[in-house]
Amino acid sequence: MSIKIAIDAMGGDYAPEEIVKGSVLGAREHNVSVLLVGQVDKVKAELDKYDITGLDIEIVRADEVIEMCEAPGSAIRRKKGASIVVAVEQVAKGKAQALVAAGSTGAAMAASLFGLGRLPGIDRPAIALVLPTMDKPVVLIDAGANSECEPENLYQFGIMGSAFSSKVVGVENPRVGIINIGGESGKGNTLAQDSYKLFTSRENSTLNFIGNVEGREIFTGICDVVVCDGFVGNVTLKVTEGVAHMMIRQFKDQLYSSLLARIGAWIAKPALLKLRQKTDYNEYGGALLLGIKGTCVISHGSSKALAIKNAIRVAKESVEKDVNGKISRLYESNKL
Amino acid sequence: MSIKIAIDAMGGDYAPEEIVKGSVLGAREHNVSVLLVGQVDKVKAELDKYDITGLDIEIVRADEVIEMCEAPGSAIRRKKGASIVVAVEQVAKGKAQALVAAGSTGAAMAASLFGLGRLPGIDRPAIALVLPTMDKPVVLIDAGANSECEPENLYQFGIMGSAFSSKVVGVENPRVGIINIGGESGKGNTLAQDSYKLFTSRENSTLNFIGNVEGREIFTGICDVVVCDGFVGNVTLKVTEGVAHMMIRQFKDQLYSSLLARIGAWIAKPALLKLRQKTDYNEYGGALLLGIKGTCVISHGSSKALAIKNAIRVAKESVEKDVNGKISRLYESNKL
Repeated sequence: MSIKIAIDAMGGDYAPEEIVKGSVLGAREHNVSVLLVGQVDKVKAELDKYDITGLDIEIVRADEVIEMCEAPGSAIRRKKGASIVVAVEQVAKGKAQALVAAGSTGAAMAASLFGLGRLPGIDRPAIALVLPTMDKPVVLIDAGANSECEPENLYQFGIMGSAFSSKVVGVENPRVGIINIGGESGKGNTLAQDSYKLFTSRENSTLNFIGNVEGREIFTGICDVVVCDGFVGNVTLKVTEGVAHMMIRQFKDQLYSSLLARIGAWIAKPALLKLRQKTDYNEYGGALLLGIKGTCVISHGSSKALAIKNAIRVAKESVEKDVNGKISRLYESNKL
Repeated sequence: MSIKIAIDAMGGDYAPEEIVKGSVLGAREHNVSVLLVGQVDKVKAELDKYDITGLDIEIVRADEVIEMCEAPGSAIRRKKGASIVVAVEQVAKGKAQALVAAGSTGAAMAASLFGLGRLPGIDRPAIALVLPTMDKPVVLIDAGANSECEPENLYQFGIMGSAFSSKVVGVENPRVGIINIGGESGKGNTLAQDSYKLFTSRENSTLNFIGNVEGREIFTGICDVVVCDGFVGNVTLKVTEGVAHMMIRQFKDQLYSSLLARIGAWIAKPALLKLRQKTDYNEYGGALLLGIKGTCVISHGSSKALAIKNAIRVAKESVEKDVNGKISRLYESNKL
């Protein structure tokens, strides 16, 4: 039986058009069943554009939509019929094995936490995301779920990040580092210092903790998982996007500045395209909300069909490779 | 009379060779006098390599050196004869108007704070640094001096960053933003939220506060000054360096992957070079430690001659354009 994925068809800047398109592409390419959750007429109108012969795609009715500007907690309590709430219900009731959401990140987190609950030993679910480096990709956790954290949270992020890295990225014995502003153990703010102590406090730890990692080193491939609070993680993620975008743009501007350079640019185009792909969040396939009893992939609000298709791949892999089972096992052998 | 700059000739990975070389270049190009502070025989041996006819370069004796690994506070108290301590003394005694240091950032900060004192109204000196954007460069403050901050500190960083932006970068009425993980006023951690309130609390403020700025937006040129605590600032700076370095490297790898692409690469070389220049910290000329009674430019530990030459330019401009006077005036008209 194929894996079934519930998709919030109404969430994101390009919903429902691009969400439905990406779902059709994902269902076909990754051989999964899809529940499109949203306003039936709108979703059906989009779905009718495609030939879905042989695909298992169903529409699940949800009349309300949570907007990006709404406070997540109160919105999910008030709008029981919101697409994100109903999509989470599909997972909670066992009708789907995973969730893909591109709308309000806060609403997706709140709905998942409320509707599915936390994994044992995890105090705060966190967002894990894959960043490109010069070597293998690195898992960044927390990329924005928890603005303020305690050392215990960062330690649990280390456990969850390790599970994600080994199961989804395919790294054996992933190296875990703390994002810090210096390499030595006494460096950084109180959170970084105390987290360092916690990571090194447990004898016989099966976590492969390598110490502090500076912002610059993240991209050299020095480690496989970097942990930090959600504020630092979100800044790291967005600065990465911002610099990559700026550099590609400036490089293009440079290349178009003279006729000779233009010829070079024409020849260099495939290289430029490949570079952009590597840093395009549509290619990552979204972030995983780890630490909940279920699988929830959170896509960027500006996700287009490609991003949704890739999010479906990440959701499928996470279920198949049992990331949550790995988190629980790692927790059992590393609890403090 | 030309401006005189004291330079810690023993500080940095390439001291004294590159420091002395950069000082000679800087003295000539920027028409300043230089005091090279360090071990006389070593500095003299380097200086003898150059024709310094017509330049005002003097050696000031300092027998001790503070190593990168030493704890800054105790090191400057213990080693009264250290090059960084003696260099600061030159400014304190009025023998020089500014200081350039490429050694331990902590030691330079501690020595400056101890030897020169703080400007009125500034509780915590901070490191201000210029980052490239798609538009005009943006001033990042604090880039690493204070791992933990209070809202009052960020507000003062806003005052100092504005002064730096208007006087050195040349921006009229610089726009100031808080680095945050969302645009709305209630977003982010406690520090970001409370700082937002503080920036908007004062009626008739002459600061051009524009609100929160996300990591991605920093590089679009949306504002001229971004404030944050030194932990977030240092991560921002180093992630920027790391991503820029990775992208240039990967782009080169792509370009050398086929014969045709190689031809393109050859043609595109000047464009690539220009891009690297734009993101090379040797080109920035270092960071200013703002908030002390004096002018102190802190260069990267791996500074070579070019970086030192540019640091001399930044030091000279800061003195000539009276950044500290501007900070005091801005403080007077914006104190809480």
